[in-house]
Amino acid sequence: MVGYDLKSLLEQVREKNPLIHNITNYVVMNFTANSLLAMGASPVMAHAIDEVEEMVSLAGALVINIGTLSKQWLESMLKAGKRANELGVPVVLDPVGSGATSFRTRAFRALVKELQLSVVRGNPSEILSIVSEYVRTRGVETAHGTEEALAAAMDVAKDSNSIVAITGPVDIVTDGEKVIRCYNGHPLLGFVTGTGCAATAAIAAFHSITTDSLEAAAAGLAFFGLAGECAGAKANSPGSFMVALLDALYEISPQELQEKARLEKG
Amino acid sequence: MVGYDLKSLLEQVREKNPLIHNITNYVVMNFTANSLLAMGASPVMAHAIDEVEEMVSLAGALVINIGTLSKQWLESMLKAGKRANELGVPVVLDPVGSGATSFRTRAFRALVKELQLSVVRGNPSEILSIVSEYVRTRGVETAHGTEEALAAAMDVAKDSNSIVAITGPVDIVTDGEKVIRCYNGHPLLGFVTGTGCAATAAIAAFHSITTDSLEAAAAGLAFFGLAGECAGAKANSPGSFMVALLDALYEISPQELQEKARLEKG
Amino acid sequence: MVGYDLKSLLEQVREKNPLIHNITNYVVMNFTANSLLAMGASPVMAHAIDEVEEMVSLAGALVINIGTLSKQWLESMLKAGKRANELGVPVVLDPVGSGATSFRTRAFRALVKELQLSVVRGNPSEILSIVSEYVRTRGVETAHGTEEALAAAMDVAKDSNSIVAITGPVDIVTDGEKVIRCYNGHPLLGFVTGTGCAATAAIAAFHSITTDSLEAAAAGLAFFGLAGECAGAKANSPGSFMVALLDALYEISPQELQEKARLEKG
Repeated sequence: MVGYDLKSLLEQVREKNPLIHNITNYVVMNFTANSLLAMGASPVMAHAIDEVEEMVSLAGALVINIGTLSKQWLESMLKAGKRANELGVPVVLDPVGSGATSFRTRAFRALVKELQLSVVRGNPSEILSIVSEYVRTRGVETAHGTEEALAAAMDVAKDSNSIVAITGPVDIVTDGEKVIRCYNGHPLLGFVTGTGCAATAAIAAFHSITTDSLEAAAAGLAFFGLAGECAGAKANSPGSFMVALLDALYEISPQELQEKARLEKG
Repeated sequence: MVGYDLKSLLEQVREKNPLIHNITNYVVMNFTANSLLAMGASPVMAHAIDEVEEMVSLAGALVINIGTLSKQWLESMLKAGKRANELGVPVVLDPVGSGATSFRTRAFRALVKELQLSVVRGNPSEILSIVSEYVRTRGVETAHGTEEALAAAMDVAKDSNSIVAITGPVDIVTDGEKVIRCYNGHPLLGFVTGTGCAATAAIAAFHSITTDSLEAAAAGLAFFGLAGECAGAKANSPGSFMVALLDALYEISPQELQEKARLEKG
Repeated sequence: MVGYDLKSLLEQVREKNPLIHNITNYVVMNFTANSLLAMGASPVMAHAIDEVEEMVSLAGALVINIGTLSKQWLESMLKAGKRANELGVPVVLDPVGSGATSFRTRAFRALVKELQLSVVRGNPSEILSIVSEYVRTRGVETAHGTEEALAAAMDVAKDSNSIVAITGPVDIVTDGEKVIRCYNGHPLLGFVTGTGCAATAAIAAFHSITTDSLEAAAAGLAFFGLAGECAGAKANSPGSFMVALLDALYEISPQELQEKARLEKG
């Protein structure tokens, strides 16, 4: 038990409808926007160098996601992230595909170096890619287990003063010292594209409510994993699971989240 | 009662499958294409400066939507719009996020100034942003009511010789003198991204059939709002609502549209 | 009967989860990724000139799709395709909208000329556009029948040493000499955007398992058409059909594919 007031966090998301600014990949934009809307937040997608600073100044949190990355978008990410840092807007990074190509690995490292990130969420290979040249991500999938990446995650968290979240069958969240494991989730989440990216966006939505990055990361993963469990109770195949997942993000009550979140310390 | 023959309009969309050229945002491209297909039209998405003029020459209407805008895309929008004007192809504009950033507000104003737009559809904040520096759109959501934006909409409609449609719980359509209100709709439409953008595309589909822009705008909003009502009768949460909405766009018969459209003058 | 071991092919896709690199259009990225995941493959979307060569070197097959094309993306397609050719990674092309604009027709021809394509899959108008200046594609829809395009397809197949697949109510696959017809399919496939593009991706997934391009093309079309049939047995409208289609891609067993594929020679 971690003692977080998840009930209050979700209540506040639903009441305040925080604006979440996403600079994310083409594949998941629609699903991310629908996930944020369903849970009670207000998504906006904007990537133009001409407007990212102004847009992020209106936002409760910024999501940066490097899937379908290009040089131009990386510039916008850095510009938006720096402005967010100046304004105290939390920045959550999803290093999709880092380790698969050197372009993405370099982008991940540049974002960690240039920005103060609140939370980094990735699969084990993506997280490992920041510390090792020898890790290979298989496209956007991982070739490693979450526990295997924990030591690296703790180092990265300490060095960058960020929370690192490694997701897999069991999710792990760390600030470099404390470790929280999240046991919510469902195997069909791996058969719908963008569920990891949407979990990252859920973390950002909670982070617009709380200044505690560890709490925001744990809340986002527990909430999204629980939505997966609810969807899995209704659907056995990916198409209907995706529909049930969006429904669950809307239907889960604050009280239900408080009761069914499976977060454990240590 | 407005006396439009909506039955005939929808019959003709289903018979002629008009090609609708969309230069729209990344978030909603898939849902817009599926909405147009479901209602009986033929969508095409094309943004390259090298082909927009040729593509629009094949189309029954052009949709311009400034969500996820960039400078390059704005150039293509202007080029396609000018060619559409020369050819007499109706141009329908969705100024997504105008008022949120000065980049989008300037783009909205440039499009109104440079092009002869047939219909502009936006939420109240977006419509107000064209006449006031002081309006702020909250991301892509509105902070104003539809009635509050009516005076501005009438001015814009008169000045630009366009139909302006303001959407919200009650939609308002005006040519600067006449005013039509549409009472069709459902609250869950606000929990699915791109429903406003798809309503804009529906207006374009009807405009490819009729030269009367006011009729096209009213028909599009009534049809899309009615589809929302049908979906809301089957689904209580956003994921299943989105599925039921696409089904409804396909299932609503011309006769049903004629009978259930709630359009009122004045 | 064609004598292919489709059972074994699908078993191997499900066991090996081949990485499929897609450089595809914005409209269908999400649906393509979900289709590949549902059938058992691992999609990755990457278009940046800085990483396409490295990404394709990890892949079992490359999909190139020219919907929403721009000059910059065409460069990346050529670069990725040339590297794929060097490495022996099969390249499958979907010439979306060729014939609608000269920009797309020229792109199609350049890709056929510059690359060794394993399979080209298009509708009749798209396939005809490579041999005739006089064909016009209606946006991204066809104005021709599949049999009408067969002679052209056979010429193109011979000249380019590629398999050409023409899809419609009955699909035709040819290497320039042999002809296989596929009778699987469902009319509602035409009411969901990106089903043709996802069929192309399914061909690529099978091609990552077999080196026989004709077999891969036939298997992909039979499998995707069969999924359409399964979906059509559960759903009567496009929204719920799309959901049932993704479910079917996941649910169809290798044995069921073997039994229900309707492929005929000659």
